Amino acid sequence: MVTILLGDPAVQSYIVYSAVLGMKMFAVTFLTTKVRVSKKVFANEEDAKSAKGKVKFDDQDVERVRRAHLNDLENIPAFWVLGALYLTTGPSAFLATTLFRLFAAGRIIHTIVYAVTPLPQPARGLAFGVPMFINIYMGFKVIQTYASAL
Amino acid sequence: MVTILLGDPAVQSYIVYSAVLGMKMFAVTFLTTKVRVSKKVFANEEDAKSAKGKVKFDDQDVERVRRAHLNDLENIPAFWVLGALYLTTGPSAFLATTLFRLFAAGRIIHTIVYAVTPLPQPARGLAFGVPMFINIYMGFKVIQTYASAL
Amino acid sequence: MVTILLGDPAVQSYIVYSAVLGMKMFAVTFLTTKVRVSKKVFANEEDAKSAKGKVKFDDQDVERVRRAHLNDLENIPAFWVLGALYLTTGPSAFLATTLFRLFAAGRIIHTIVYAVTPLPQPARGLAFGVPMFINIYMGFKVIQTYASAL
Repeated sequence: MVTILLGDPAVQSYIVYSAVLGMKMFAVTFLTTKVRVSKKVFANEEDAKSAKGKVKFDDQDVERVRRAHLNDLENIPAFWVLGALYLTTGPSAFLATTLFRLFAAGRIIHTIVYAVTPLPQPARGLAFGVPMFINIYMGFKVIQTYASAL
Repeated sequence: MVTILLGDPAVQSYIVYSAVLGMKMFAVTFLTTKVRVSKKVFANEEDAKSAKGKVKFDDQDVERVRRAHLNDLENIPAFWVLGALYLTTGPSAFLATTLFRLFAAGRIIHTIVYAVTPLPQPARGLAFGVPMFINIYMGFKVIQTYASAL
Repeated sequence: MVTILLGDPAVQSYIVYSAVLGMKMFAVTFLTTKVRVSKKVFANEEDAKSAKGKVKFDDQDVERVRRAHLNDLENIPAFWVLGALYLTTGPSAFLATTLFRLFAAGRIIHTIVYAVTPLPQPARGLAFGVPMFINIYMGFKVIQTYASAL
């Protein structure tokens, strides 16, 4: 059984990269607003009116940023919980910090190749796949460690 | 380095407002069902059949509630993790509880002006912006505190 | 006031079912890809090109899996935080582990009846309702326990 200590390097790594990923998600929120304003395309009547734009739900640039955002929601909150639970399985500090770093790097690159500078595959596939693999690995280690509680 | 204690007023404030925000999100789920049933507009064939309604994906009232819900997903889980991590940076109890209260109040007002009683801007902008600013502030403090672990 | 100990059966139950639910969500991600590839229907131009398919946003099978996924996002992250906070209210190990088990079972069944083998109502309604009721119950207990911090 392991105690979570704030002085532990793996715990500090989890904390700082969790916050970095939150900030990255907020950047996508602001990017959505930027693209909406620059293309004058909005989801709500009152927003369109105040910005002298129009209501439109199929603008390709806006929808692309929104898909990147939704993909964040499908992966980052899972990291927040699985990363914390994974720390309770007693991983080596080196492995844990490497996984957290790779996860954060992958998701930042994912946002760039998806929503900022669209690149051909397999750029987005890799930037999606590495963090997904890390989430699955951590989930597997947690289930393995606590399997007797199932 | 700070220990998280359940008796700490800031920790208790985080816990109770995190639960309040969860309940608020569930209220939006029920609001979606209410609007769907009252307008007889559904996303699934079997739901439409059992309620003698139809399948429709562009009903403006339903979509408005769904946008409010998605906006919750983009902001509230981030609060759950950033709020907890922020507590480990040793904020004053007064500042922390004030931020948690303002965040919860902002998101509740956001739901009301977005999905219940549409109000002209800047009502929704403010109700969105204040919690977003709090999330960013907490994320910044966490990264600043643990920057050596990057 | 209660201390969270990793040796506590209710805590271990929370940990293992939280990981199970994360893995279940990832399964829906892979199911989306599987349905997209088998129907050759994609959201991005570059994906359609590399798989010799087309861009389409209203394929009924793909959208059904995506709705199941979004429904996960509306319920599972809330469980992750409310379940953890509920543990601090000192529930009996039997009640807590039963709620966690039922929540996980309900969400797994929900995915199956929504996205794998569409079943007539009330199958999906029950598989949605039981976990929702558990989330609300846990949220209520947390707010009740920490009401003085509101």
